[in-house]
Amino acid sequence: MARKKAVVDAKIASARDDRGVIVVATGNGKGKSSSGFGMVARALGHGMRVGIVQFVKGRIATGEEAFFRRFPEVDYHVMGEGYTWETQDRERDTRAARAAWEKARAMLEDASYQLVLLDELNIVLKHGYLSVEEVIAALKARPPLQHVVITGRAAKPALIAVADTVTEMRSVKHAFEAGVRAQKGIEL
Amino acid sequence: MARKKAVVDAKIASARDDRGVIVVATGNGKGKSSSGFGMVARALGHGMRVGIVQFVKGRIATGEEAFFRRFPEVDYHVMGEGYTWETQDRERDTRAARAAWEKARAMLEDASYQLVLLDELNIVLKHGYLSVEEVIAALKARPPLQHVVITGRAAKPALIAVADTVTEMRSVKHAFEAGVRAQKGIEL
Repeated sequence: MARKKAVVDAKIASARDDRGVIVVATGNGKGKSSSGFGMVARALGHGMRVGIVQFVKGRIATGEEAFFRRFPEVDYHVMGEGYTWETQDRERDTRAARAAWEKARAMLEDASYQLVLLDELNIVLKHGYLSVEEVIAALKARPPLQHVVITGRAAKPALIAVADTVTEMRSVKHAFEAGVRAQKGIEL
Repeated sequence: MARKKAVVDAKIASARDDRGVIVVATGNGKGKSSSGFGMVARALGHGMRVGIVQFVKGRIATGEEAFFRRFPEVDYHVMGEGYTWETQDRERDTRAARAAWEKARAMLEDASYQLVLLDELNIVLKHGYLSVEEVIAALKARPPLQHVVITGRAAKPALIAVADTVTEMRSVKHAFEAGVRAQKGIEL
């Protein structure tokens, strides 16, 4: 344990580049979006300005939205009002995805956003509503100190390749199995 | 996709119990604590009162701490001022863990806390500074609607057994490998 820690410390000490990083949270387990919003909270604790684009929106406002919209240093955008994945209207979905992406791209061109959270972007890429090449080009061209967090299951291998930190959230056990209804506040 | 979603919807509809749940985030990857703090933000968005005990404390204040201490509806406790795992002083560590646990236990006996985050509790259990039986007994005796989130790698099997939702955060790729220094704000 102490030895492993020392190795990690040495790696940290030798890691020299000060630059923005791309963090991806993927996998079938819970906690992907939550970890993104936790990073937003941390960034706000450090006085950063944050941009958020939520690419999948349920019918009711989420707790994160209610919470983070309170802060003037957060620019919060949600894709397509009342939009759900159940419409099966591919043209409408593509239009909504494109509009949300334009918002995201503007943030990725603006160095005043020190952290940009692109929540559930992976889902939009998985469905082919946006091209992963276009997203990667915008990520590569972004301001050098800007951090980006991308969430959603089924992250594209090309996106994983350009990311700095990738975590797979793997479901070990889920409350639905135990018959617990999705809870307000915790939203399993 | 649509069919899979329908199955999940049916599971949600048939999940009847309204009760507090235990969520565990474990594994060697990033995002465990962040997901816990994201759930805190979500709970605050729903107007809940939240208790937080951080069982591992670095030498400098974290962004989460700076951020969440702003809110009167959050009761934030950090274990042992200036405490680190490098002291190798087992007696002191055990004392600090015990004091933090007393704080946590008081929250687990108080229904006015609708969500309790026990950040890095798994590490303390792994080191044997607290007994997992004592922790599980307190979890089982807590107010029925209270949610608890427990983070840290190497979650004990006995804790996983009583949890409702367990996610393993698996490291796919880490920025240290790429030579990027730990970043203020994002803290990889």
